[in-house]
Amino acid sequence: MSTIIAQATPAGESAISVIRISGSLSVQLAKDACGYNCEEPRRAKVANYQSITGDIIDQVVITYFEKGKSYTGDDSLEISCHGNQLISQLISEDLLQRGCRTAAPGEFTKLAFLNGKFDLSQAESVAQIISAKNHFSLAAAQRNLKGDLSEKLIKIQNDILKLQASIEAYIDFPEDDLDTQDYSIQDEISKSIQKELETLLAQASKSQLLKRNIRLVLIGLPNAGKSSLFNHIVDKKRALIHEDAGTTRDYLEMEIKVGKHTVVVVDTAGIHDTNSHVEKEGVKLSYEQACDADIILWVVDGSVPHPTDLPIEFEQLIKKTPTILVLNKSDINTHDTKQIQIELTKQSISCKNNEGIEELVWNINELVTELYGIDNDQILLISQRHQQLISRCGKEIENFMLDLNNNVGFEIISKYLTSAREYIDQMIGIKTNENMLDELFGQFCIGK
Amino acid sequence: MSTIIAQATPAGESAISVIRISGSLSVQLAKDACGYNCEEPRRAKVANYQSITGDIIDQVVITYFEKGKSYTGDDSLEISCHGNQLISQLISEDLLQRGCRTAAPGEFTKLAFLNGKFDLSQAESVAQIISAKNHFSLAAAQRNLKGDLSEKLIKIQNDILKLQASIEAYIDFPEDDLDTQDYSIQDEISKSIQKELETLLAQASKSQLLKRNIRLVLIGLPNAGKSSLFNHIVDKKRALIHEDAGTTRDYLEMEIKVGKHTVVVVDTAGIHDTNSHVEKEGVKLSYEQACDADIILWVVDGSVPHPTDLPIEFEQLIKKTPTILVLNKSDINTHDTKQIQIELTKQSISCKNNEGIEELVWNINELVTELYGIDNDQILLISQRHQQLISRCGKEIENFMLDLNNNVGFEIISKYLTSAREYIDQMIGIKTNENMLDELFGQFCIGK
Repeated sequence: MSTIIAQATPAGESAISVIRISGSLSVQLAKDACGYNCEEPRRAKVANYQSITGDIIDQVVITYFEKGKSYTGDDSLEISCHGNQLISQLISEDLLQRGCRTAAPGEFTKLAFLNGKFDLSQAESVAQIISAKNHFSLAAAQRNLKGDLSEKLIKIQNDILKLQASIEAYIDFPEDDLDTQDYSIQDEISKSIQKELETLLAQASKSQLLKRNIRLVLIGLPNAGKSSLFNHIVDKKRALIHEDAGTTRDYLEMEIKVGKHTVVVVDTAGIHDTNSHVEKEGVKLSYEQACDADIILWVVDGSVPHPTDLPIEFEQLIKKTPTILVLNKSDINTHDTKQIQIELTKQSISCKNNEGIEELVWNINELVTELYGIDNDQILLISQRHQQLISRCGKEIENFMLDLNNNVGFEIISKYLTSAREYIDQMIGIKTNENMLDELFGQFCIGK
Repeated sequence: MSTIIAQATPAGESAISVIRISGSLSVQLAKDACGYNCEEPRRAKVANYQSITGDIIDQVVITYFEKGKSYTGDDSLEISCHGNQLISQLISEDLLQRGCRTAAPGEFTKLAFLNGKFDLSQAESVAQIISAKNHFSLAAAQRNLKGDLSEKLIKIQNDILKLQASIEAYIDFPEDDLDTQDYSIQDEISKSIQKELETLLAQASKSQLLKRNIRLVLIGLPNAGKSSLFNHIVDKKRALIHEDAGTTRDYLEMEIKVGKHTVVVVDTAGIHDTNSHVEKEGVKLSYEQACDADIILWVVDGSVPHPTDLPIEFEQLIKKTPTILVLNKSDINTHDTKQIQIELTKQSISCKNNEGIEELVWNINELVTELYGIDNDQILLISQRHQQLISRCGKEIENFMLDLNNNVGFEIISKYLTSAREYIDQMIGIKTNENMLDELFGQFCIGK
């Protein structure tokens, strides 16, 4: 079996970087490159990492994790070097020369799954933990890792088995009950299974919302002050601000913290008719960004009594998306624009005098809390893969009940339940295939 | 003494993040948050990190490094959690609540220095190792960490002491030699010291070149195809490319690998007279970028027989900077432009048909090798701080020799040598003050 390596920490200048190694070469590598004796597992040791050509690459801390007890279940090493991409690269290149190969994304966790360290829905939760964007999705992913989802799935699995057993009896002793076709027991179990499946499905869309950060998109006519406001909100002089209208052609985004939540603030190009092809593209991009918004900040030059209308497609978006109307340039004047037939939260501000910004952020906070402020304490993360399998499982149960009541033969309808159980097996990972695993773990980051 | 914490790995989604803790609270924290018993130092253990409010934040791996033997010299912990910024943040916030404080940049290394784990020039090399941008600067920084620079400084220090001793003898027994003023010994030692100081100084400018990556800046008139070429070189569709001239207003930069070296490729706004204030700013920015270039790619639309001249200030730059003249649009035509009176490497390319790009990269590689391809094997990294102290030390030796030959009193000229030694002490860190240390370690990254 090959020995895999990957950097387990992000690239960038930092105090340390960690390189992970897993496979049968580990013990030998530790000895050859670091003079590290693996007789004392898990004991961190300072060592010079010496390349195969004899150069000392860096002073590192190396730790050995023994087979069976490591994350992957195989012999593993963790090497902490100084946090310089160049160093991790040199060490990685050296490890490749010593016979290792680069790990595929998620391969360490895949090994852990294959070695029986946890089931598939738990393995999936590792990626969910890493990509969790807020407290709720993190807690939900951790419930998955703890096995809460697996527990629910096993319960469903058992219920299907019970259902199948109840009709297998008919198959074995068909003469017993042929006349008295009372399927109330089957009906009850099926309904219970379907209810459990539906509960899980209901969590799928919530899982999607939890999985990403809220997007706050600034839109408006050119020169309304979107970029100035963007800078005020993200508190950085990043956008190129200028008195000329139409400066922002591309779009910029930055993450900010609003209470417990991370919000992605997106500045967009000003919306206006223009003959410039690039700016038309800019407006198209602004529209795409606005479509993707969870909250829109509609920035208007409040000092102008009758600003130009927004294009109709933007108005439509505002009507269906939580929006704050921001009346900028209050230092000059504030005309309360009433362009569209909808009641909006309004906030008068002056970017120039830094007035009203705090209140605006408070309004944003309100909207964010509204979007998230629902009972998230018990939710489990349902991935799109889960969602599909749950739907298919439900469909099999539905077909089973239909054909049972139509008096289709027990041997035939039992197959629905076998399929239903297979879908659950696929979620837990009892039944897998190489393609499915590759696809699933391919979504992980490298080094996990 | 307070207990300090910091994330030791860069922010970002990854397999793991590492949080460092150092100070007297370490042992208690390990027990309270992770149920980790510090009786077995350096033994990595899997644990649930439980916050002070009782929430399990993550499953982590925790390792204790005992006082005296840790990096800082104080009781320390390393906590590896899943590589999600949210998790590291929750853990950090919890550690603050438990009485820790956030470490200042470089504070772990500062502690190591204060606890006598290494001298100041070695401590400085830790930051140099982390920020090393190429093999040569990395190796040089590692020589510094190993103590090669310290060794040279101590040698100089001893020579100054020898010099001082030689004249202290005159102070103690002035009558002995008052007539026979033969300063040949002093002269010899002084010259030797000055030569050593000069050797170090000569390495300072080289250190500066080694410290950063080579900057390759694309300049040219609008619509010459700079952005297309940029994308071809960095192999990413990042720059907004468009047929309209003048699309790039800001500048873009990306790192690429050229042989063993990292090169920063910079795309700039097209150079032209314009009434638009923003674009004038853009051109100013392009000029600034070009001034900072180690290599210029002067991109010309080769299909135009007589392209507009570059502004004179750009021509001046091209004359003194290694430049490749890139004749783009060879798919249409190639006119060999002869605008400026200087022989340049020329490369005809077609971004459209992806022709000549490989040859161009090869030409770039040649220039890069030329810039770096010098004997770097023995160089030591001399920081600007070192450079100043070395110069000052040299000045004291010079003054000493001058006044010695002018028969100024021995008590007076001995003070020059005391000052000279103090400058060396400051480099090694025998003589320090809080401000100096703060400034020095303030340049480190957080967590180191």
